[in-house]
Amino acid sequence: MISVSKALSIVEKYCFPLKSVTKNVADSYGYILAEDVISPLNMPPFRQSSMDGYAFIHSEENSFKVIAEIQTGISKNIEIKKGGAIRIFTGARVPDDADTVVMQEHVARTEDQIFIDKIPEKGSNVRPEGEQIKVGEVALEKGNFLNEAAVGFLAGLGIKNIEVYAKPKVGILITGNEIKKSGDTLAEGEIFDSNSLTLKLALKKLSIEEVEILFAKDILEETTICLKKLLENNDVVLISGGISVGDYDFVEEALKENGADQLFYKVNQKPGKPLWFGKKEEKMIFALPGNPAASLTCFYIYALPLLKAQMGFKTLQLPKLQAKSENDIKNNFAKTLFLKGNVENDIATEFSGQASSMLKSFAVSNALLIVPENVKIIKKGESVSYLKLD
Amino acid sequence: MISVSKALSIVEKYCFPLKSVTKNVADSYGYILAEDVISPLNMPPFRQSSMDGYAFIHSEENSFKVIAEIQTGISKNIEIKKGGAIRIFTGARVPDDADTVVMQEHVARTEDQIFIDKIPEKGSNVRPEGEQIKVGEVALEKGNFLNEAAVGFLAGLGIKNIEVYAKPKVGILITGNEIKKSGDTLAEGEIFDSNSLTLKLALKKLSIEEVEILFAKDILEETTICLKKLLENNDVVLISGGISVGDYDFVEEALKENGADQLFYKVNQKPGKPLWFGKKEEKMIFALPGNPAASLTCFYIYALPLLKAQMGFKTLQLPKLQAKSENDIKNNFAKTLFLKGNVENDIATEFSGQASSMLKSFAVSNALLIVPENVKIIKKGESVSYLKLD
Repeated sequence: MISVSKALSIVEKYCFPLKSVTKNVADSYGYILAEDVISPLNMPPFRQSSMDGYAFIHSEENSFKVIAEIQTGISKNIEIKKGGAIRIFTGARVPDDADTVVMQEHVARTEDQIFIDKIPEKGSNVRPEGEQIKVGEVALEKGNFLNEAAVGFLAGLGIKNIEVYAKPKVGILITGNEIKKSGDTLAEGEIFDSNSLTLKLALKKLSIEEVEILFAKDILEETTICLKKLLENNDVVLISGGISVGDYDFVEEALKENGADQLFYKVNQKPGKPLWFGKKEEKMIFALPGNPAASLTCFYIYALPLLKAQMGFKTLQLPKLQAKSENDIKNNFAKTLFLKGNVENDIATEFSGQASSMLKSFAVSNALLIVPENVKIIKKGESVSYLKLD
Repeated sequence: MISVSKALSIVEKYCFPLKSVTKNVADSYGYILAEDVISPLNMPPFRQSSMDGYAFIHSEENSFKVIAEIQTGISKNIEIKKGGAIRIFTGARVPDDADTVVMQEHVARTEDQIFIDKIPEKGSNVRPEGEQIKVGEVALEKGNFLNEAAVGFLAGLGIKNIEVYAKPKVGILITGNEIKKSGDTLAEGEIFDSNSLTLKLALKKLSIEEVEILFAKDILEETTICLKKLLENNDVVLISGGISVGDYDFVEEALKENGADQLFYKVNQKPGKPLWFGKKEEKMIFALPGNPAASLTCFYIYALPLLKAQMGFKTLQLPKLQAKSENDIKNNFAKTLFLKGNVENDIATEFSGQASSMLKSFAVSNALLIVPENVKIIKKGESVSYLKLD
């Protein structure tokens, strides 16, 4: 059995991005750039008015003759001479000879004449070509997360395809004779599956949508075959249950049959002690405990950082913050505890119902409070570390 | 022109949930419960062993005869008498007469006999039926967000359908002659659309996926028809561009033609001054500025809270936090400024490139720094409020 910090340091060794893939910009939300993106054009692509108003050649005169108007989206240049003004709108191309735009709010207009109450400085309200970015410049750097603004920005540059880090394909194997799919009829001794759905949705939150789910009875051959299939098709395999020392727990044997190498087994923590981590070639495997809350805890602490690393994220762990404990929190186990709780206004409250089978407290918690293995009690008012759930 | 706080207070008046709808639990991720969910069963549904070990009737004897074994998932009860023990596994049904389970780690076994080195307390390692939740109890309360743990928990209770608040259907109208769809060829004076993608993805982040997007040229009739269609099909309509006072901005007129009522127009802020908010019957409408960064800013500040309220969220605004300003931040406009920036370790840095057309700074920022309209300067080291972007 190893400590949490040792286990994390072993997982970290395998935290690096998958290969890069080419994606259409419109489909790139949630990915991370695997290469710098170079701008194919100037942005704005022409000198642009930033106001509705009148374009003119700057002078100290305040009376101009309106000679034409330029609607936004019209490409042709209009010649303009000193003393002339052109009606112009936000986003429209400023005539090549004009150097200044006055806001219409500062203008009085008659039929074909304008009078400017306050002449703006030369260059006012004209966005230079390439002000935001110039052709050939780096538009967005490698490593940038493609959020809604980033995707819109790249689409606005007319970029079609970009290189991003691939998202891992994830296989989930749910083991156990007692597991019935939701909707089936439950005989005594059986329970409904929740882990497949919980893990699938935790992956969806990471925007990992390619997920393959298999169910295996507690039979060695079935477990081995399912695991083989999942290892062939996926980058990461999550196994739920079957890894403790019970006589019908065949996961460890099925892992061996598949030629998987153990990197660690059992962590000095509660919940989630019987966690197994290993790999087969470049495929990574987490055998999570079957109990729902223990399974999800191990997912957040160990699997999530690895998956985020594969996607190219640099910040891997859930945010780790500090709060004041509302009550005494005892640790009688000499294990690292991950306690479902709530943090509001920097006050941390431990929930009742911490058993590793209890998913309910997870459903309403916003924090996992951490009590280190060597700490016997965190007293009321003392500082407690927590991982922020969202 | 009204202040930001006045504008927000007007939006707030229309912040309430849409009607509730019935959803399959498996498809309910990201929704909010519109009713308490009552548990249809006890959880666990039977007395369950929490360990791999042996079940027996508690006594001070430490030698027991192994008479049977119970695999997890097997329903039938096995009779047991004092002095007998039954091999049992985590999650399996504890025989009705047994009251205690001993961990296998504390047991030495011969062929059909076990010797327990330390007799556990009576009741140890037996999860009572209904320990987590009892039939008829409230499993999850109205108002709970359905995250991965909540969905898994409800599925684990065998619940099929639940009442949740409907997600709003959103229509997006992109206006402007100068807007070309990404992939088209750009003539001089034209720019690529980015707003439709940015807004669609900002909605996706809220898990709103039913989005209808239309494009309209700067022609009154086209704008009016598109708006009519979007108002018929959707709960909320976002319009991009066409709402300033330019002679070709037909959105205000199209809104009137559609019988929409103005609730406010123009907010004393930068960017995003020409924001229009209104409604037609129960349909809510935001006419956002066409400039990409201004459009997204208005979306975050005004549209997002309304959409979250319709989905049943109680916390509506982006998280508002405080940091120390790394530099002087000037406000020469007597407007509320929303400045793209970065906050790291409670130090807030304002980005260059704040023009309302510049989406790039949004793509790499994690905060919108707020300078109130009545503040002329936030000095280096002074506290600055910010909205956290993620």
